[in-house]
Amino acid sequence: MASSTLFSMCSLKSESFDIKAINSNKEFKFNASNLPVKAMLSSDFMNSRLLTDVNLLKWGQSERLLRDRMQCHAVEVEKVPAYTMGKKFQLDDVIEAQQFDRETLNAIFEVAKKMENIEKKSPGSQILKGYLMATLFYEPSTRTRLSFESAMKRLGGEVLTTENAREFSSAAKGETLEDTIRTVEGYSDIIVMRHFESGAAKRAASTAGIPIINAGDGPGQHPTQALLDVYTIEREIGKLDGIRVGLVGDLANGRTVRSLAYLLSKYQDVKIYFVSPDVVKMKDDIKDYLTSRGVKWEESADLMEVAAKCDVVYQTRIQRERFGERIDLYEEARGKYIVDKDVLRVMQKHAVVMHPLPRLDEITVEVDADPRAAYFRQAKNGLYIRMALLKLLLVGW
Amino acid sequence: MASSTLFSMCSLKSESFDIKAINSNKEFKFNASNLPVKAMLSSDFMNSRLLTDVNLLKWGQSERLLRDRMQCHAVEVEKVPAYTMGKKFQLDDVIEAQQFDRETLNAIFEVAKKMENIEKKSPGSQILKGYLMATLFYEPSTRTRLSFESAMKRLGGEVLTTENAREFSSAAKGETLEDTIRTVEGYSDIIVMRHFESGAAKRAASTAGIPIINAGDGPGQHPTQALLDVYTIEREIGKLDGIRVGLVGDLANGRTVRSLAYLLSKYQDVKIYFVSPDVVKMKDDIKDYLTSRGVKWEESADLMEVAAKCDVVYQTRIQRERFGERIDLYEEARGKYIVDKDVLRVMQKHAVVMHPLPRLDEITVEVDADPRAAYFRQAKNGLYIRMALLKLLLVGW
Amino acid sequence: MASSTLFSMCSLKSESFDIKAINSNKEFKFNASNLPVKAMLSSDFMNSRLLTDVNLLKWGQSERLLRDRMQCHAVEVEKVPAYTMGKKFQLDDVIEAQQFDRETLNAIFEVAKKMENIEKKSPGSQILKGYLMATLFYEPSTRTRLSFESAMKRLGGEVLTTENAREFSSAAKGETLEDTIRTVEGYSDIIVMRHFESGAAKRAASTAGIPIINAGDGPGQHPTQALLDVYTIEREIGKLDGIRVGLVGDLANGRTVRSLAYLLSKYQDVKIYFVSPDVVKMKDDIKDYLTSRGVKWEESADLMEVAAKCDVVYQTRIQRERFGERIDLYEEARGKYIVDKDVLRVMQKHAVVMHPLPRLDEITVEVDADPRAAYFRQAKNGLYIRMALLKLLLVGW
Repeated sequence: MASSTLFSMCSLKSESFDIKAINSNKEFKFNASNLPVKAMLSSDFMNSRLLTDVNLLKWGQSERLLRDRMQCHAVEVEKVPAYTMGKKFQLDDVIEAQQFDRETLNAIFEVAKKMENIEKKSPGSQILKGYLMATLFYEPSTRTRLSFESAMKRLGGEVLTTENAREFSSAAKGETLEDTIRTVEGYSDIIVMRHFESGAAKRAASTAGIPIINAGDGPGQHPTQALLDVYTIEREIGKLDGIRVGLVGDLANGRTVRSLAYLLSKYQDVKIYFVSPDVVKMKDDIKDYLTSRGVKWEESADLMEVAAKCDVVYQTRIQRERFGERIDLYEEARGKYIVDKDVLRVMQKHAVVMHPLPRLDEITVEVDADPRAAYFRQAKNGLYIRMALLKLLLVGW
Repeated sequence: MASSTLFSMCSLKSESFDIKAINSNKEFKFNASNLPVKAMLSSDFMNSRLLTDVNLLKWGQSERLLRDRMQCHAVEVEKVPAYTMGKKFQLDDVIEAQQFDRETLNAIFEVAKKMENIEKKSPGSQILKGYLMATLFYEPSTRTRLSFESAMKRLGGEVLTTENAREFSSAAKGETLEDTIRTVEGYSDIIVMRHFESGAAKRAASTAGIPIINAGDGPGQHPTQALLDVYTIEREIGKLDGIRVGLVGDLANGRTVRSLAYLLSKYQDVKIYFVSPDVVKMKDDIKDYLTSRGVKWEESADLMEVAAKCDVVYQTRIQRERFGERIDLYEEARGKYIVDKDVLRVMQKHAVVMHPLPRLDEITVEVDADPRAAYFRQAKNGLYIRMALLKLLLVGW
Repeated sequence: MASSTLFSMCSLKSESFDIKAINSNKEFKFNASNLPVKAMLSSDFMNSRLLTDVNLLKWGQSERLLRDRMQCHAVEVEKVPAYTMGKKFQLDDVIEAQQFDRETLNAIFEVAKKMENIEKKSPGSQILKGYLMATLFYEPSTRTRLSFESAMKRLGGEVLTTENAREFSSAAKGETLEDTIRTVEGYSDIIVMRHFESGAAKRAASTAGIPIINAGDGPGQHPTQALLDVYTIEREIGKLDGIRVGLVGDLANGRTVRSLAYLLSKYQDVKIYFVSPDVVKMKDDIKDYLTSRGVKWEESADLMEVAAKCDVVYQTRIQRERFGERIDLYEEARGKYIVDKDVLRVMQKHAVVMHPLPRLDEITVEVDADPRAAYFRQAKNGLYIRMALLKLLLVGW
């Protein structure tokens, strides 16, 4: 979202400011009472319901004058609220895994842990009472949608839902994503968006005056999955520094494992093992990135050997649709590395098996009963992470 | 809805009434304690949850006798509640733009203005707490549906939703609209219906014991759009009497502009300019109606000239689907009148650009940043109008 | 659901138990403080939000040892709560009509009657506040879904909804029903499921740690319809013992009439008349079952004669899809037994016409106005039955 929107009102009529910068989104910065403040040249941020007493923005000067860093009289601006009140950082949108540093991750995980308690002990939580989340899904993903909607409702919030968002941009009605966002932000306080195009969430966020959460944009990002994966490792193993993680299966196409490798590089003394059929090996960009960050990694063809050494065996599904006509290659690849009782047998007592779900047969059903099978707890952790993010984006720390 | 259903209970056992009239909907009128009262020969209005202490209707006479205006003993009737308590009018259903007179419009707009405050300042409003709205959509219209559902939830109400209502009347399950309504009214307190057939909302309202809101019935009516358009003009320009409105684009097929022209005729000294490609000119019925009501109108081929004179430039989308095979005519028509920076340049400072959305390129994106671009505020006004209507239909003035 | 999940916590650390039995679902029984207790060898019941203070289950022994009835130290178990506190029975899931005995039916009907009052007089009921129901529909059934969702919301509960559940098991994402249930139970407190496969609900219930309600599984069961049918007879006629019921229409394929016949056999001195075209006669299994239970039944080709004798004429729709290419047979069958004014004329004053809906023309529209037309009240009773079941499953008696 445009950062101004979550600001609380600070009436500065008739004062004058020195405009510091103005960017293409029409955001600008200036100082007021010696506080750096961002504002936006737009009338529609007035609609944000977090504002309590906002009059129309009256410019003493035209936008052109502002660009020229003229002084600006009689403007009403907004100031960052609770967010910055002695707290670490401000969370505006959740767009991609890369936006989170280690400190931010830890802070989110702390909130997620509190959410576990709330979910179990406070069924009638009203933390987000009065807030309305729109789930704007351009392609169906029932699992992800239900997880977000459950998160919102567990905190007392309300939901507007559509899995039919593609209708907005269909041939007959065809409007831009930006127009759709401008409309939907008028009906809600936060938008959870799933889209078929990489980068769609970023475009939405630069348009919206309310927070956007990316619930997957095509082959691009699915940051809440990445967060819940790291959170699960921390909850199951008790630490992130020094862990050994085996990434197994389709490492070439899975955005999940790519994001996970990326986020793990933020911790110390991590070692990653890549175990995958040749046709779907981890790509060089991630390997190079890990090397540049000093993360040790190696490729292995021996799942048993890796499983015996790791804290986490992270299995993924080989996706048939990646193989086109080559069913033979698919069949060969998918049968190669299966997590079964034999793998469990060599795994350490404290280690866990993870999987982003859905699984087909890459983890056998017999594994489910083992306490080290963490994948359903992992799915549940998605709820806590999403509760935490909704809380942080809507009411702050 | 059948008007009896919103009545509060008035126990009139053992009294006797003189039946005044009975119509085909089985509604009848009589006097009780010198108050004109309407009731209904139907058992299912007993189900209305607004009633607080209702026993089964016991007729001393058969329906046939009632038709003969016999006296009727031992009937329990209901009396109009808050609605009529010193207030202007009773709103039973919202079916078509024509049902609203100027006084009613003003009264609704007053309530809508209050809703703006509630939405901004009272996120936890409970005005409609305990009420359940069903959105019964026979064709998808995510924009309209989300707007209604947001309106309900902003007031603390709850929603049952389906965009799959066509399933009710599908070949295999095939039931009449009337039967569907009788079922759904048992689950909810108000029905917002979108249908592909003109007149469907009226049929639903004559069946239902609860209020019906027409959210568009085929090429017919879309009254809440008409209301929000007029409301937007009043909010943006500050008045409705004496305004100059340019209707631009597809005036032949757009139900929006037709309804708007109709409603504007209720105000004084209005002047309307029609600016459209020849193939989609405003039809004679509306022109004749305006003339008969003393509304001045003229057709113009010069958008710039009109834009310079008007308070409102109301642009609409040229709908490709209206042109069938004649893509050439469509391409010619759609490019003819575009609202862009040049149009803005000639427009007056207080004037605004409106559009029912979605837009394609009939308003260029560069216009969005101008404060006179009112179309997203217009969309937001749809929320306030719908909040107002839901409040009026469910709890009265 | 696995019965342990609704238990309240009873901290029994460091005590020792004698395991009584362990079954294939990994449930086991033992005594604690002389109370028989069931628990489950599973880590995921820890996720149940009804538990208030649950630590991870730490086994002193392996599952294998437990099977061998070893003593088990340091286990935390859960104890049956309110359910068994002086009340008749415990309701874990609603899977099939056969699970209900007469006593259970009566108890549920008592609660349903209370629900009628709540729906009419307590619009803001908060009985299920804080509870979240997931409607997991693998095929659309808007009528049934809306009825359940209304029931939940009338009691203050919240809903996660999908009519798109088939996406979970689609070719590309293909996961087992069991995996889907394990995921969705992490997001909700109760699952209402509709599936295209017979037996799906039972499979879901044996997996889930939360209650499952079967909202129809293929040609199999639709137990809430069966319950609402019996409840309607009791409400309309005032008794179930000694009633005369005519089942009319498609008796071969209708799961509704089959379940109804089954449940009626639990009452005394019931007589059932079967009236159907030859091609869709009641099958021998139900006839044999009725005979074995001492229920009198006879087949008749004369609807008028039966209608004159019965307390309930239960009409059903002849389903075209059952006839394949033989449209001629379908047309002959569907026109044979119509409930119209003539049938009403011979029916007794206290008798009623019922129908599971939707109806086509097997009951003529003219019948609707007659007070004996009970089918819309029957649909409404579905709401009360579902409110009752949700309440019983989530908060007990």
